[in-house]
Amino acid sequence: MHNKAVFNALGKILVLLAFTMLVPLLVALYYHEPLKPFIVSILITLFVGLFLTSIKSSVEWQQKEALAIVALTWLSAAIFGGIPFLFEGVPFIDAVFETMSGFTSTGSTIFVDIESHSRSLLFWRSFTQWLGGMGIIVLFIAILPKLGVAGRQLFRAEAPGPTEDKLKPRIKDTAKILWALYILISAIEVLALMLAGMSMYDALTHTFAGMACGGYSPYNLGIEAFNSPLIEFILTFFMFAAGANFALYYRAIFVDKNFLLKDEEFRTYTFILLGFAGLLTLILYKDMEFSLFNSFRYAIFQITSIMTATGFASTDFNLWTDSAKVLVFAVMFIGGCAGSTGGGPKVVRFLLVLKYARRELFKFVHPRLIRPIKFNNKAVPDDIIQSIMSFIVIYILVFIFSAMLLTLLGVDMISSATASIATLGNIGPGFNVVGPMANFAALPPLGKIILINNMWVGRLEVYTVLVLFTSDFWHS
Amino acid sequence: MHNKAVFNALGKILVLLAFTMLVPLLVALYYHEPLKPFIVSILITLFVGLFLTSIKSSVEWQQKEALAIVALTWLSAAIFGGIPFLFEGVPFIDAVFETMSGFTSTGSTIFVDIESHSRSLLFWRSFTQWLGGMGIIVLFIAILPKLGVAGRQLFRAEAPGPTEDKLKPRIKDTAKILWALYILISAIEVLALMLAGMSMYDALTHTFAGMACGGYSPYNLGIEAFNSPLIEFILTFFMFAAGANFALYYRAIFVDKNFLLKDEEFRTYTFILLGFAGLLTLILYKDMEFSLFNSFRYAIFQITSIMTATGFASTDFNLWTDSAKVLVFAVMFIGGCAGSTGGGPKVVRFLLVLKYARRELFKFVHPRLIRPIKFNNKAVPDDIIQSIMSFIVIYILVFIFSAMLLTLLGVDMISSATASIATLGNIGPGFNVVGPMANFAALPPLGKIILINNMWVGRLEVYTVLVLFTSDFWHS
Repeated sequence: MHNKAVFNALGKILVLLAFTMLVPLLVALYYHEPLKPFIVSILITLFVGLFLTSIKSSVEWQQKEALAIVALTWLSAAIFGGIPFLFEGVPFIDAVFETMSGFTSTGSTIFVDIESHSRSLLFWRSFTQWLGGMGIIVLFIAILPKLGVAGRQLFRAEAPGPTEDKLKPRIKDTAKILWALYILISAIEVLALMLAGMSMYDALTHTFAGMACGGYSPYNLGIEAFNSPLIEFILTFFMFAAGANFALYYRAIFVDKNFLLKDEEFRTYTFILLGFAGLLTLILYKDMEFSLFNSFRYAIFQITSIMTATGFASTDFNLWTDSAKVLVFAVMFIGGCAGSTGGGPKVVRFLLVLKYARRELFKFVHPRLIRPIKFNNKAVPDDIIQSIMSFIVIYILVFIFSAMLLTLLGVDMISSATASIATLGNIGPGFNVVGPMANFAALPPLGKIILINNMWVGRLEVYTVLVLFTSDFWHS
Repeated sequence: MHNKAVFNALGKILVLLAFTMLVPLLVALYYHEPLKPFIVSILITLFVGLFLTSIKSSVEWQQKEALAIVALTWLSAAIFGGIPFLFEGVPFIDAVFETMSGFTSTGSTIFVDIESHSRSLLFWRSFTQWLGGMGIIVLFIAILPKLGVAGRQLFRAEAPGPTEDKLKPRIKDTAKILWALYILISAIEVLALMLAGMSMYDALTHTFAGMACGGYSPYNLGIEAFNSPLIEFILTFFMFAAGANFALYYRAIFVDKNFLLKDEEFRTYTFILLGFAGLLTLILYKDMEFSLFNSFRYAIFQITSIMTATGFASTDFNLWTDSAKVLVFAVMFIGGCAGSTGGGPKVVRFLLVLKYARRELFKFVHPRLIRPIKFNNKAVPDDIIQSIMSFIVIYILVFIFSAMLLTLLGVDMISSATASIATLGNIGPGFNVVGPMANFAALPPLGKIILINNMWVGRLEVYTVLVLFTSDFWHS
């Protein structure tokens, strides 16, 4: 491990992070709120960043260094980005929790009374999601010069889902395209929300949360505060868009209009989302006796919100019957598409697991026949299938292990299970004590640390973080 | 598919099943209870069996026919073995549930008042577990002549866990050894229980349940009815013994005394069992304020009972705190050893999943280095690892799918999840409405059918049953 190369790169990223904090500083200026929290945070982050940058290294980094850089970038972002929270009396662990939840676009909040915090701090809280949504590393690659092959390694270590990363031969160009698309669609969402009656502040913060599939709202009631079907449908549409592969949009615009519908993952994503929303509509209509319109309105919003791992709540779904809740719980284990800002294990992996199960049953009866697994009409190489299976197995082990630890700490089983998957999948709320109208404040400190770890592990798709915990990683 | 060969073999097995019903007939004679239920059942089973046997087939069966024979054997056993229950007013679905639960040595009961049934019926109910515990097919192979290679295919389709089946070159001899050991250890358990104060009837029925890792008791209170630490410790010891690989006992007796301790699966099994029991002792002592002796007594009994998939309850563990319950829940996903009478996914698979996860993390950092997975100091071939992974993936899919269906039918989430894994793992009780002092009667009929299917799928370790549901199986 070439520590110096890691420190150097990390330093540059911290400098970038310091600059992003200028945005909430401007908001504080606008609202005449204290500037000190952001000025101090910027100075500390800048100072540490510049210090680390001064550690020079002539070595080209390899796979290991790339993994360490990416994993530590996200941990540092949560710690340094959490400094402004300390000025409003948030304890250190809670600040790291809230910021990790922001950058990883999880949206699980530890705030008991969100509205008691300043507008600028809540803006920063929402903004962290937007930065993390498309990826801090992707932003870094897009902005900073001269990374080359090393940049591709970084890109891969952060990329959500098994996806094609060669939109352009140079990774820097790919990163630029992704961020440009992201900014473009975000701008459209802000406009749409303002036309629907939101203030600019609300439109911006909810776009940050929606486009990043994050889920933070500056209001205690979340989306319920607006109680507007129109706003909910707009948010649903953009959450759905953010949960699909951004590379597809690029291809649909510049290569072939039909690219979206031709893509098997996108079709499956749409199919599952509509199927679950339809079923949930019926159950809400029957069990909860909502009107048919409201049943559909809540169902499509909530399924889209949870499946894309946004975590917005337009109503307290913790009060629904278990039949309704289990559908919400189930989509937590599917997630958005690869290459989206959505979380969870991703639709493509879920689809390939089902195809794999089918193929294995076939193999059991016909051991000598070879039948490849197809995706988008192409045979998927066996090593890709194997790496997806190992991802799923490790993902489930992390889920079970963290849920069990939480329960042993005294949290009830439903809360433990849903808090674990909600953080690991970067979703946001769970059920019971971590329900959509509740918060994570009541958990014991050790429980919070476990969930901070889950968000970190989940956002970087398991391997990039977990390898840091193996002795092999450091001793060779 | 050579249907005639399947019918012929199935007929022979039904004739054998008819003979086993002579045992409860003798019990009914002894207790002066009605003989009609058993006489009618024997005649129907014998008649159908002889009719099927009359369908002659000259074709040697292949893999597909072997799978169909084994899967249909277990379904037929549940249906024909359930006939005596109909005479005591048990509805058809409930009778099939109770008998499937018996033969698969699950031990989930649908009886609201167990003690309202006749001694002979309860004896038969317990006896089905013992027959199914070591395997109906194994018994069939041991008793019937002339099976050869075809017998080995049958044996494999029923065998619990990935295990070496070549104790002897001829599969018939292996089957005989396994049944002989099973009968021997059972006899010792009956004696031990009688010495501890049980009546012969109680000792026999509880040995049937314990040696088969079944869990039925003829008493509403289960093992709590005796309230005897000595009896509980004896049962714990024999459940532990039944949850280990019987082939190891043979090798330990005839080859090398140290075979047991040298076996990695046996060591892991013991280690997990003692570890969880130790942790549970502490939690019960702290959370439930039991005495230290009682904490240990309940903990070791309940962890052994659930991990081996027996499902005996010496106390109503549904009343424990969630911290205590989660340990019980967790061992449901591990199970006994391969080649034991225990259920669940089996220790060896769990161990290999962990080793696989570790290896994958290593591979992520060092993509070019090859590090084999070792078990008992030997490298495990990659195709074995792959087949275990696919087993685990399919197992989890069946669990999630059935739990979700149950919840959609209106059962609460904890009951749905624990009922699904308790039946799929052939364990017995779950929590809440399917808790240890409750029963499965309150579930909707469709829910019972799902769980009957789970028991069948779980006992034959997923593939043997699930392939019957694929169109490939029938159309080629």
